[in-house]
Amino acid sequence: MKAFNDLADFSSEEIAALLKLASRLDSAPEPAALRGKVLALLFLSPSLRTLASFQAAMTRLGGGAFVISPEMSIHGIETRPGIVMDGAAAEHIREAVPVIASYGDAIGIRAFAERKNLANDLAETEFKALTDLIDTPYINMESALNHPCQSLADWKTMNDLDIPAQGGKFVLSWAYHPKALPFAVPAATVHMAAMRGMDVTVLRPEGFALPDAVMEKAHAAAELSGGSVIETDDRVEAMEGAHVIYAKSWSSARHYGDRIADEKARSELYHWCVDDPWFDNARPDCRFMHCLPVRRGVVVSDKVLDGPRSVVIHEARNRMVVQMAILHQMMGAKA
Amino acid sequence: MKAFNDLADFSSEEIAALLKLASRLDSAPEPAALRGKVLALLFLSPSLRTLASFQAAMTRLGGGAFVISPEMSIHGIETRPGIVMDGAAAEHIREAVPVIASYGDAIGIRAFAERKNLANDLAETEFKALTDLIDTPYINMESALNHPCQSLADWKTMNDLDIPAQGGKFVLSWAYHPKALPFAVPAATVHMAAMRGMDVTVLRPEGFALPDAVMEKAHAAAELSGGSVIETDDRVEAMEGAHVIYAKSWSSARHYGDRIADEKARSELYHWCVDDPWFDNARPDCRFMHCLPVRRGVVVSDKVLDGPRSVVIHEARNRMVVQMAILHQMMGAKA
Amino acid sequence: MKAFNDLADFSSEEIAALLKLASRLDSAPEPAALRGKVLALLFLSPSLRTLASFQAAMTRLGGGAFVISPEMSIHGIETRPGIVMDGAAAEHIREAVPVIASYGDAIGIRAFAERKNLANDLAETEFKALTDLIDTPYINMESALNHPCQSLADWKTMNDLDIPAQGGKFVLSWAYHPKALPFAVPAATVHMAAMRGMDVTVLRPEGFALPDAVMEKAHAAAELSGGSVIETDDRVEAMEGAHVIYAKSWSSARHYGDRIADEKARSELYHWCVDDPWFDNARPDCRFMHCLPVRRGVVVSDKVLDGPRSVVIHEARNRMVVQMAILHQMMGAKA
Repeated sequence: MKAFNDLADFSSEEIAALLKLASRLDSAPEPAALRGKVLALLFLSPSLRTLASFQAAMTRLGGGAFVISPEMSIHGIETRPGIVMDGAAAEHIREAVPVIASYGDAIGIRAFAERKNLANDLAETEFKALTDLIDTPYINMESALNHPCQSLADWKTMNDLDIPAQGGKFVLSWAYHPKALPFAVPAATVHMAAMRGMDVTVLRPEGFALPDAVMEKAHAAAELSGGSVIETDDRVEAMEGAHVIYAKSWSSARHYGDRIADEKARSELYHWCVDDPWFDNARPDCRFMHCLPVRRGVVVSDKVLDGPRSVVIHEARNRMVVQMAILHQMMGAKA
Repeated sequence: MKAFNDLADFSSEEIAALLKLASRLDSAPEPAALRGKVLALLFLSPSLRTLASFQAAMTRLGGGAFVISPEMSIHGIETRPGIVMDGAAAEHIREAVPVIASYGDAIGIRAFAERKNLANDLAETEFKALTDLIDTPYINMESALNHPCQSLADWKTMNDLDIPAQGGKFVLSWAYHPKALPFAVPAATVHMAAMRGMDVTVLRPEGFALPDAVMEKAHAAAELSGGSVIETDDRVEAMEGAHVIYAKSWSSARHYGDRIADEKARSELYHWCVDDPWFDNARPDCRFMHCLPVRRGVVVSDKVLDGPRSVVIHEARNRMVVQMAILHQMMGAKA
Repeated sequence: MKAFNDLADFSSEEIAALLKLASRLDSAPEPAALRGKVLALLFLSPSLRTLASFQAAMTRLGGGAFVISPEMSIHGIETRPGIVMDGAAAEHIREAVPVIASYGDAIGIRAFAERKNLANDLAETEFKALTDLIDTPYINMESALNHPCQSLADWKTMNDLDIPAQGGKFVLSWAYHPKALPFAVPAATVHMAAMRGMDVTVLRPEGFALPDAVMEKAHAAAELSGGSVIETDDRVEAMEGAHVIYAKSWSSARHYGDRIADEKARSELYHWCVDDPWFDNARPDCRFMHCLPVRRGVVVSDKVLDGPRSVVIHEARNRMVVQMAILHQMMGAKA
């Protein structure tokens, strides 16, 4: 495997094989599989779960990881092309990325959306500029529009819990948050659920539709898998018979990069906090999912998050489990 | 071993077995004992020795560790229960701790005393709130009232140096420090020396007696071990025939949580700096111990710290050695 | 090997053996060579390549590393001798270094020049004060006047590229930089190229001659190896027939420690930026070397750095490769 960048790069069979490998490595550890192997971890954006789970995954397979983030460097890392570097930054990303990659058998890269220009972020301009610098196998640890490790973990979590693929109803719901957040998780999630063959409803208030390109990609996945994708702002309709609600806040595409306008657009939407009444017409065993970190009392009530519907810790642990499979495929001995 | 939280949870025989295992692992390394095993390290308070020694211990046993501290997270970690998280913090400790624990076969947690309310700190309210969130085996890397890894290392150091248990005289002395420090080390130390069967004198100025609960626990340990515990503010009496002086500063229990009043109470006590004359009526081979970090010229003179009485580096190295034994017991294969 | 501190401590044969071992470990990994072994990494100055490459090297050999930098400690680390520590710093380097070293089978230390007093820095006063505190084998990860890991990597890079030793022409050129930088890399580099037997030209503007002690050490190495060392401020003369240009900025020895005077001395020298015309009378295959980080458009043009002459990524990767050999010699089983 040369890259783990997007679930869309894999067939359903390949995903199934990865998830099978993940389960096997979880139940039958292979502490010598990657001995002497090195994973470089480059965080251009902050992290907790990703930082911890990748290091843990490498240790469990007998290898190791090292972590680089820009604040470790002498004076930050310059990213602008063609610039005369006579300011604070002493190093350019054009050297930093290939050098860091050269120490690893694979590299994980995290770089959140710039959120200045939607077209650029939809095209993954920044992330591609980084991966174009290297030949080393790489893992997308969250980019402007993707978070494939999270999506693979979420897929596995639904399998673990026997939530049906064909015929399973998956609601991706916008939730309130004081800040305009990126599209990475919602874009990856709607595509993942569609690719899994589920009937997906995107529930969001007026003005917070996902970008067309995101919806088109999800529709294409549904077409292949036999699933479906619809959008609505009607919570009752959305939650009818749902197996899963996956909550996440995201920006308004209309006001992309305009923090003030986005805040205004969401200012009256603080009732979009998932709470018990949301589940009134869902399936009795409807699950609550979230990628974490999650704001209590803002995105979801304490009662739901601490209650039996919540599977957020299971999802988070599965990050480590599926990443073991990715790393094993990427760096392990060929059969 | 499900938890290493307090020496009082173990019998003398169990401590002896741990120390024997520690010595064995130091002289006959077992670099495959914990291969593929992961130690999660969560630091809610700063660290140097603990940070380094736990990572080194895991490597020596063939496993690995990862480190999480709140400043790595996006916007800090919220700890207050029931709060609406619409401020800076994007993650709550109720998710962070179980997630981090889920990546490890064991977790080490450090959380210093809040020092707002003595009863809460004596009851380890904060630390228990964290460990109640998890089923993963855990290690107390310093809490409000305990530092069991330090105490186990100190116990081993005295064994290594043939300082007698029964009949050995151990002086725990208050020392000057510009800041009001927690009770964790003095509380753990007085209990450890008493549990080891030593004749313990707590030497401290008027107003700096250890809390009653701390002294009662030490007395109970002495009763079982055949040791004794007394308190005094008379240095000459305290040091008479001493085998060891263990220096440490701590807060005034009277002014707990009141920084200004505590500073006033200690303002005239800067002569409580361990120096050569303190040893005039001690045993000629009386040792100087301290858990580090130590302020030179404040807690102890350069002459004592750099002289032959000082065993502080030996104590610090023993942190790694005893932690190997704890980790081996906690995560190693059952016999 | 008790220390890797200076290439001058080794014979040419010993260097050749190290480089042979490095190549072997790169092509035939030994993931069990250092299992259970620990490298302590102490950074008193910032790092990216060194931080990453040492951790990667230890993992590849089956051991592990831990990293300590002063900002991890409670309140910084005091370095002044004999001081009463009643200020912010809670720990003295006299404890910190021996403790950190005690957890490792070897320790790497980085401490940049203080740049207050040239004689002190030429004598490596600060670095020796640190290594005098320990018996643990140590590696110089850059000191006031040395960077032996970088030099060994550069030596290997030239071997890899078949750049001749005897008869090879090596130009070490000063370059513009907005800040007064230390002598560590140029001092190590001029000595390394001379020790390799090359004909070395130090190209620098008036006022930026390297300190006499640095040049004398290089001359002594050239005498032994059959190489030569000259200085000039004439670029055309310097570049005539060159195999390699190694660019690096450094301080003016005349104004050492006087930042304002140094800035004034270099204020008109921004044309000292390596660019295509510099290579007009060099060998057609003349290489561009730099230790990184490098300021684009300041030290070297984008065209040269991104062009086929540039071997900077190769040099950086060789840091890991030669460090594997050093670590193997220092901590591996004796034959």
